[in-house]
Amino acid sequence: MSFKIQEVDGGVCAPAGFTASGIHCGLRKNKDKKDLALIMSSVPCAAAGVFTQNLVKGAPVVVTKQHIADGTAQAIVCNSGNANTCNDDGIRVANEMCALVAAKSGIPEENVIVASTGVIGQKLDIKPIADGMDELFAGLGDNALDAEMAIMTTDTVPKLVAAEFELGGKVCRIGGIAKGVGMVCPNMATNLIFLTTDAAISSEMLQKALSADVQTSFNMVSVDGDQSTNDTCCILASGLAGNAEICEKNADYRNFCKALNYCTVNLSKKIAKDGEGASKLIQCAVTGAKSLKAAKVVAKSVIKSSLVKAAMFGSDANWGRVLCAIGYAGVDVDPLKVDVSFRSCKGEIPVCVQGYGIEFSEEKAKEILLEDEIEILVNLNSGAYKATAFGCDLTYEYVRINGDYRS
Amino acid sequence: MSFKIQEVDGGVCAPAGFTASGIHCGLRKNKDKKDLALIMSSVPCAAAGVFTQNLVKGAPVVVTKQHIADGTAQAIVCNSGNANTCNDDGIRVANEMCALVAAKSGIPEENVIVASTGVIGQKLDIKPIADGMDELFAGLGDNALDAEMAIMTTDTVPKLVAAEFELGGKVCRIGGIAKGVGMVCPNMATNLIFLTTDAAISSEMLQKALSADVQTSFNMVSVDGDQSTNDTCCILASGLAGNAEICEKNADYRNFCKALNYCTVNLSKKIAKDGEGASKLIQCAVTGAKSLKAAKVVAKSVIKSSLVKAAMFGSDANWGRVLCAIGYAGVDVDPLKVDVSFRSCKGEIPVCVQGYGIEFSEEKAKEILLEDEIEILVNLNSGAYKATAFGCDLTYEYVRINGDYRS
Repeated sequence: MSFKIQEVDGGVCAPAGFTASGIHCGLRKNKDKKDLALIMSSVPCAAAGVFTQNLVKGAPVVVTKQHIADGTAQAIVCNSGNANTCNDDGIRVANEMCALVAAKSGIPEENVIVASTGVIGQKLDIKPIADGMDELFAGLGDNALDAEMAIMTTDTVPKLVAAEFELGGKVCRIGGIAKGVGMVCPNMATNLIFLTTDAAISSEMLQKALSADVQTSFNMVSVDGDQSTNDTCCILASGLAGNAEICEKNADYRNFCKALNYCTVNLSKKIAKDGEGASKLIQCAVTGAKSLKAAKVVAKSVIKSSLVKAAMFGSDANWGRVLCAIGYAGVDVDPLKVDVSFRSCKGEIPVCVQGYGIEFSEEKAKEILLEDEIEILVNLNSGAYKATAFGCDLTYEYVRINGDYRS
Repeated sequence: MSFKIQEVDGGVCAPAGFTASGIHCGLRKNKDKKDLALIMSSVPCAAAGVFTQNLVKGAPVVVTKQHIADGTAQAIVCNSGNANTCNDDGIRVANEMCALVAAKSGIPEENVIVASTGVIGQKLDIKPIADGMDELFAGLGDNALDAEMAIMTTDTVPKLVAAEFELGGKVCRIGGIAKGVGMVCPNMATNLIFLTTDAAISSEMLQKALSADVQTSFNMVSVDGDQSTNDTCCILASGLAGNAEICEKNADYRNFCKALNYCTVNLSKKIAKDGEGASKLIQCAVTGAKSLKAAKVVAKSVIKSSLVKAAMFGSDANWGRVLCAIGYAGVDVDPLKVDVSFRSCKGEIPVCVQGYGIEFSEEKAKEILLEDEIEILVNLNSGAYKATAFGCDLTYEYVRINGDYRS
């Protein structure tokens, strides 16, 4: 019998034991934009996280790594509007955010995960956060969307996911919220992703599941090739579903990983499609690679190419740029074996066979590429490995958004 | 006495023995756009070249590598409008271009360098080139600008350089023309650069000089991070200046290298400043690095960051993005030692000291960044190595140009 995964509503609040809240505390000038989020579990949770590999790390990343080192956490607090990065008082402020949540909830400060997103290098004022604590806690409930709205920056659509599945006859759920959408080219994590589950799983196995998962989900996303200083992906497991705790790589673990990947790939696509200024989700699916690494490197090279991204914006079947990006990816590829097709809901059109262009209908290609979800299919015809990368097109809007982000 | 380099007019025709021509032969629809260039030497020359590292190589790159393998060449023929890349008849067509020049000039086919630039994956029709040979040769003269106009694609300004210097009391010259301006992130060479000199130098030393030179000039340029399939940088040395032939790494060799670097850095800046859609030349000068490699990698990481480029377009002193790009460059850097300043003809403003932001006048920063030549100064304070990378801002115009390049 195949393992069934069912999408459900509720985001991070879908799993048993979790509530969320999101408010405007005043870090942002626009009063209609929420800027402070809280996710709480009713019980201490197994916790795991993956973080930016950037040598310049936000202060919240440093503090959160310390706090989940023991595999336990119970709350996540996150502000937008300021990344609390490259500030000489950053660690102190991040610790204060945790202390405020601890004081209000009665849980230990070390069980609070903290994250911040926004501009780098401007001091984060703790006062609006302290002043907002009462309202933040008062808002706790089935409010994943509020929390999501509070962590969004240049995101244009909220990104929530939740899925239901069974482990040993017990109904379990995983939920998540995410923010993108610029400075997105994660390595071991992406911007901010908070996941919850009521499945019972040890913190050790939870970390293994998450670390493996991001290799095919968030780490395969690129919006602009810039790796953020604050990338954080954390998951809390309340255990309230009542399944037999997963403590080894058994069938339940593998099914949990499938459900987790369902949620993370869903959020990955949402992040890519909502990439700053993006008008389209672009997926590059590489098959026939000699190694998994080669498949991943080629897929990301194509998805990151500014020229490919601009061609997709223009719905231009300029496959030469795809070949070019494969050629400079830095892995051993035989260009004379490469096939390329473009695909969308309007059909699929081969444009390059064994490294050379073939005759194709420009009209049909245009029809396919005018859609808002495009797949670039690359067969290297040299092995059995495959990988898919998630990206977006490059548009006027990306330039506009980033030309004067701080004002 | 210090070595003197004097800029002169004439581009590739400035050195003794060289003539050039550029015509419209019909590869491009627009009759006002030249599309075929020829550079001829009156005598056989020592020749050297560096080429794209992209695994997908244009057919002209393959043919030219064969033709200069013996260190001798006498002519360069180049078309724009079509890259003759990823075509199953590409090698045959590239050879035919050389044969046409050989037949008309009487020099051996193997002494002709061939290059092509333009769209990838569309067959190159030899007929307009064959039909244009008479006009092309009739136009030979002091016409470096015509040749330059014929190799330009999305370039908006012609890029020529020539410099005069003395070796052993003899007046020598180096001249060059270049095209950019998209798909520019060279490795061992950049798009198309043709250099000439009348200095007498062995082909072996000429290759050494060129290979070393591009490490600090063209290889430090990035417009969009895309490495072309057709990157070619060739130099011909006629020896007509009458200096004692350079056959070893002596003082004359070192002075020749200085003059060469003067010309190549000049062209590098011109390529960067005219990057597709660019409104500004951005230089990132890294000092205090632990190694030369670290200095170069950090400088290129900053110059390639889409977010830094967009901030420069908006004249926004968003130095956090510079720190971020340093952090993910992939080399060992201590973020807490990094100083960053912005500089232009309007002055210099420090914005980050030892990894943390400092108070600065946004007004003064804006004034500095509104200029069209900006330097981002990064001191890693960890060693004695330095490097400078050349790039440009990211603009609406880049997206427009590349959204539908083929139509």
